[in-house]
Amino acid sequence: MYELGVVYRSIARADGQVADKLGEYGSATVHEAMGRTGLMKPYMRPVYPRAQASGTAVTVLLQPGDNWMMHVVAEQIRPGDIVVAAVTADCTDGYFGDLLATSFQARGAKALIIDGGVRDVRVLEQMRFPVWSKAISAKGTIKATLGSVNIPVVCAGALVNPGDVVVADDDGVVIVPAATAAQTLDKAAAREANEVQKRAKLASGVLGLDMYQMREPLQRAGLRYID
Amino acid sequence: MYELGVVYRSIARADGQVADKLGEYGSATVHEAMGRTGLMKPYMRPVYPRAQASGTAVTVLLQPGDNWMMHVVAEQIRPGDIVVAAVTADCTDGYFGDLLATSFQARGAKALIIDGGVRDVRVLEQMRFPVWSKAISAKGTIKATLGSVNIPVVCAGALVNPGDVVVADDDGVVIVPAATAAQTLDKAAAREANEVQKRAKLASGVLGLDMYQMREPLQRAGLRYID
Amino acid sequence: MYELGVVYRSIARADGQVADKLGEYGSATVHEAMGRTGLMKPYMRPVYPRAQASGTAVTVLLQPGDNWMMHVVAEQIRPGDIVVAAVTADCTDGYFGDLLATSFQARGAKALIIDGGVRDVRVLEQMRFPVWSKAISAKGTIKATLGSVNIPVVCAGALVNPGDVVVADDDGVVIVPAATAAQTLDKAAAREANEVQKRAKLASGVLGLDMYQMREPLQRAGLRYID
Amino acid sequence: MYELGVVYRSIARADGQVADKLGEYGSATVHEAMGRTGLMKPYMRPVYPRAQASGTAVTVLLQPGDNWMMHVVAEQIRPGDIVVAAVTADCTDGYFGDLLATSFQARGAKALIIDGGVRDVRVLEQMRFPVWSKAISAKGTIKATLGSVNIPVVCAGALVNPGDVVVADDDGVVIVPAATAAQTLDKAAAREANEVQKRAKLASGVLGLDMYQMREPLQRAGLRYID
Amino acid sequence: MYELGVVYRSIARADGQVADKLGEYGSATVHEAMGRTGLMKPYMRPVYPRAQASGTAVTVLLQPGDNWMMHVVAEQIRPGDIVVAAVTADCTDGYFGDLLATSFQARGAKALIIDGGVRDVRVLEQMRFPVWSKAISAKGTIKATLGSVNIPVVCAGALVNPGDVVVADDDGVVIVPAATAAQTLDKAAAREANEVQKRAKLASGVLGLDMYQMREPLQRAGLRYID
Amino acid sequence: MYELGVVYRSIARADGQVADKLGEYGSATVHEAMGRTGLMKPYMRPVYPRAQASGTAVTVLLQPGDNWMMHVVAEQIRPGDIVVAAVTADCTDGYFGDLLATSFQARGAKALIIDGGVRDVRVLEQMRFPVWSKAISAKGTIKATLGSVNIPVVCAGALVNPGDVVVADDDGVVIVPAATAAQTLDKAAAREANEVQKRAKLASGVLGLDMYQMREPLQRAGLRYID
Repeated sequence: MYELGVVYRSIARADGQVADKLGEYGSATVHEAMGRTGLMKPYMRPVYPRAQASGTAVTVLLQPGDNWMMHVVAEQIRPGDIVVAAVTADCTDGYFGDLLATSFQARGAKALIIDGGVRDVRVLEQMRFPVWSKAISAKGTIKATLGSVNIPVVCAGALVNPGDVVVADDDGVVIVPAATAAQTLDKAAAREANEVQKRAKLASGVLGLDMYQMREPLQRAGLRYID
Repeated sequence: MYELGVVYRSIARADGQVADKLGEYGSATVHEAMGRTGLMKPYMRPVYPRAQASGTAVTVLLQPGDNWMMHVVAEQIRPGDIVVAAVTADCTDGYFGDLLATSFQARGAKALIIDGGVRDVRVLEQMRFPVWSKAISAKGTIKATLGSVNIPVVCAGALVNPGDVVVADDDGVVIVPAATAAQTLDKAAAREANEVQKRAKLASGVLGLDMYQMREPLQRAGLRYID
Repeated sequence: MYELGVVYRSIARADGQVADKLGEYGSATVHEAMGRTGLMKPYMRPVYPRAQASGTAVTVLLQPGDNWMMHVVAEQIRPGDIVVAAVTADCTDGYFGDLLATSFQARGAKALIIDGGVRDVRVLEQMRFPVWSKAISAKGTIKATLGSVNIPVVCAGALVNPGDVVVADDDGVVIVPAATAAQTLDKAAAREANEVQKRAKLASGVLGLDMYQMREPLQRAGLRYID
Repeated sequence: MYELGVVYRSIARADGQVADKLGEYGSATVHEAMGRTGLMKPYMRPVYPRAQASGTAVTVLLQPGDNWMMHVVAEQIRPGDIVVAAVTADCTDGYFGDLLATSFQARGAKALIIDGGVRDVRVLEQMRFPVWSKAISAKGTIKATLGSVNIPVVCAGALVNPGDVVVADDDGVVIVPAATAAQTLDKAAAREANEVQKRAKLASGVLGLDMYQMREPLQRAGLRYID
Repeated sequence: MYELGVVYRSIARADGQVADKLGEYGSATVHEAMGRTGLMKPYMRPVYPRAQASGTAVTVLLQPGDNWMMHVVAEQIRPGDIVVAAVTADCTDGYFGDLLATSFQARGAKALIIDGGVRDVRVLEQMRFPVWSKAISAKGTIKATLGSVNIPVVCAGALVNPGDVVVADDDGVVIVPAATAAQTLDKAAAREANEVQKRAKLASGVLGLDMYQMREPLQRAGLRYID
Repeated sequence: MYELGVVYRSIARADGQVADKLGEYGSATVHEAMGRTGLMKPYMRPVYPRAQASGTAVTVLLQPGDNWMMHVVAEQIRPGDIVVAAVTADCTDGYFGDLLATSFQARGAKALIIDGGVRDVRVLEQMRFPVWSKAISAKGTIKATLGSVNIPVVCAGALVNPGDVVVADDDGVVIVPAATAAQTLDKAAAREANEVQKRAKLASGVLGLDMYQMREPLQRAGLRYID
């Protein structure tokens, strides 16, 4: 499935401003705007609370217990990028720590998304370099086998193409294809505008049953009330 | 097992003051006072640290990936209630977010306990609307299939009848049947009073071995000390 | 595998100052200094954020759902010790709460590492008594069956001999055999000194590819760059 | 939640013939006939392939790592019963082996459903005594703490009242309340009759799309075909 | 990420004879021939022992707890196809049973690969219709929400394009892109030819250490022998 | 914790006849004879049904995704040995397949116990070479990093010293230290002799309540019968 041992240097990144704005709407709204697709598995969690990031994906494929390609992907980072790291097999080793975070941050990376483990999380929080990962583990890795950089990867159940928009926060990680990022932004904006009004109504005590006119379809579906 | 498509409007709630006081003792003490039963599975975790809540249960049965009945249960909430949501199959989707939280809070709900996923956790913390859940996920849900409201449900391994007392904190979620809530409160109070003294003794360096007079039964059970 | 019903009172503890210094380097550095061995499974997590501890191991073997031996081990604690609790079968019950923490702390224990559950985590944080555990659960335990104290135990996948050094923080829990603690400290110090320089270089934008001279071995392994 | 230390000797069992017939339809059909409720979690698996059983539930509540009550429940078994064992906390210990199976079989039990572990599975298969369990484990248990017999229990996520019908096979374990067993049998029979015709049509190449007249609702929902 | 509500009728299938031959080599050999990529997660297991299948992928994207699209994909099956079903969220419901199996088999499908649950496994074995799934569950599903047919899907961690070759057996499920299927077949054949000789040597007592000439590199890596 | 890069050639094996006889009693009886210790985690399962083996342990420590040391351990196998393979981190890769099985079998190995994955399970069954593993996976491994052979290892939660007795069957894997193997055999024999009588009594309808004289202690513990 994967092309191994290759680094693509030229990738078509989504518009950075679109990525920034999608981040403001958050993963839940963006995920809805995409028709409820594009979400990574919920086991992907931020390594410190209230982390938030959005940017353009630079992808890397790692081998289990081997972080050699993390150094290769570092060179391909441009300011505004988020590194998305997939692994060819399940492995919770700590592929990434404070040294690589220093390097990634120096290159302009905004975050790391990794379907594996990371370490030095106390320092990562101090550096404000956010990471979403499957695990936290002090276990180090070797540098022996090639993977690839900037190929399409499957990370935590989501397909990520280099250049796609990544939106990550407390609720999870969503991938927006570069080609539909602008259109998704419009939908997210419309959705959000709509929600402001709804929130005010609900806060005043109006029920969703009435606001969304659900009483009639619920009755039609057979819902019975018993006193 | 479950009666589907039905909403019970009249339920016998446990005494709200008893629920409040049980909350002050916390889930660990209440669980002990019940003979070590009534606890939900430990995978139920608060979505933000140090959340605490107690109240009377309003129950809702959801279908996987479908939050239609959350709007139906909102109407049945009275001040002091905690919504307990069970799902007919394992599913980590985000059934609940900031809009429903706004509605629940406006109706007087004190918390949500859900054997599924929730989203917008950053906003939930800002609103101080505590939720105990199995997962956090940006994944939205549909509104297509009926469940029920205020029927007995099994939530995270515990049987919950509408009106039961719910005690939730960092240590987990305990369900106290309405019929035995007052009696459980007495036992919890006795237990707690007892613990204050014990804590002081242990802090002064007295060993549990001596305080609980365990040396003799341990010896009888065959414990050997080797220098 | 285990000798049951026995308490060893005389154990050879590693040097407490070495344990303190190893703690300053942290679990990730110490784990590397040991050739990437000695780490417990990554499911072992601190019950409150940013907990850190190092000390000498006092071990206890528990039976599932039974914390009787926790009172027995309390008597064997000396200032600077960390209690390491293994269980003969997987069980998430809450074997340890604020009373035992009070007792352990009064005896001079610095932390608890337990391959099971704990409770009263809010109070544990207030007491600043750190615990690394597999689970948090309000579920209490009985006192009916003997285990042992200060025998070698397997805890979360790691072999722990009484007297070994325990280093625990956000990244995990590492066990350093008493016999090699001093030597491991030297290696950790060398490693850390080395990292300060590396960090500065990486922060200035130098790539790991160049700093570690990886370009040539990567090319030899067949890595291809495509524009 | 649970009443501890009590054995109910008189329970109202569902009709044994109804239980037998429900078993012939199998868990999937019965589960559908109940409106898709009553199913235990799918981690409950038969300990040998192609096991099948149905009968009336005799319930037992066990404490973790303790099988004392298994001997108490043995006395309450009548021919045609299936023992349903719940545990107050997650535990994979082997609570049941060839000796208890011999005893249960001698009393007329048809099967065991246990939300825990069992052992001697080779002998269980030779005896043709089917068990559905969460785990297989050689780990033995103690006899120290009381549970209860013939109280309502939550087993693998399903509420089981003594006397309910249990239907278990390769597809899982379904609980049918005694009160609705006859009615569920009628629905299952109707469903099955209906399926015979459908199967023949589908085998002849007719599509479900046409047989269930789905083309029009799919089109209305917006399904588009692209060549 | 996913285009919803769409059915692609024209897909470019890999050569059926190549698919057949790849199946003869088995998933482990094919996976190696692809540079150790393309394997689904190991939680995908056959529902009956010793199942084997290979064919060309017809893909379907399902919504959690909803098998409506299974009827839509049935129409797109051609003899020699294997249906690969992904779900937009984790869900163990039984999306597929004997009726759909009858329909799929009548259309010429050779197997089903599904990142969810199935039921009627006894009948599936009798029909010799093999299925690889994440779970077995009697839990039925609804028909309410659109997914898609013959779009690229991520199934159990692997990217599957319609027309790709699927190789499935006891060891797992491997996806071979249509474009590289012939080339992968050559590599698998070469590998297999090579293994026949190796097997004979090893059976005669020759060590891999000598056959693969590992002694020298092991020594260079620092391996020490101690008597 | 682990000494890396070393192969111990001289190990003290337990008596092979004792190992054979312990195997006849099975893992459950042996585990009981050891005071209910020495059992590996229940996730260790035979790769084909009804596998049974006992022998003397030859240990190997592997690195994640790397099976280089499997070739090194092959040379240390003597007839009657069972290879016990631990991994320094959780990894489900397939470290072992038909070629290595051929080699191990040629050297006289009776089985493999591995806290990781294996492949070619169809062939393993045909060869009657039993394996107990954590996973089955077609995923291959590399040969890049040293582990060790015949050092003490922790495998699936159990400490295994080279030369210990391994007893494995459907119920799990038990490790008996070489030093206490003969004594454990005596206890297992006594236990088994005892069980034959018990089984006959229970088969005749005598209750465990009476046979074990449990009625009085149950009453003392407070058990109440309600009609």
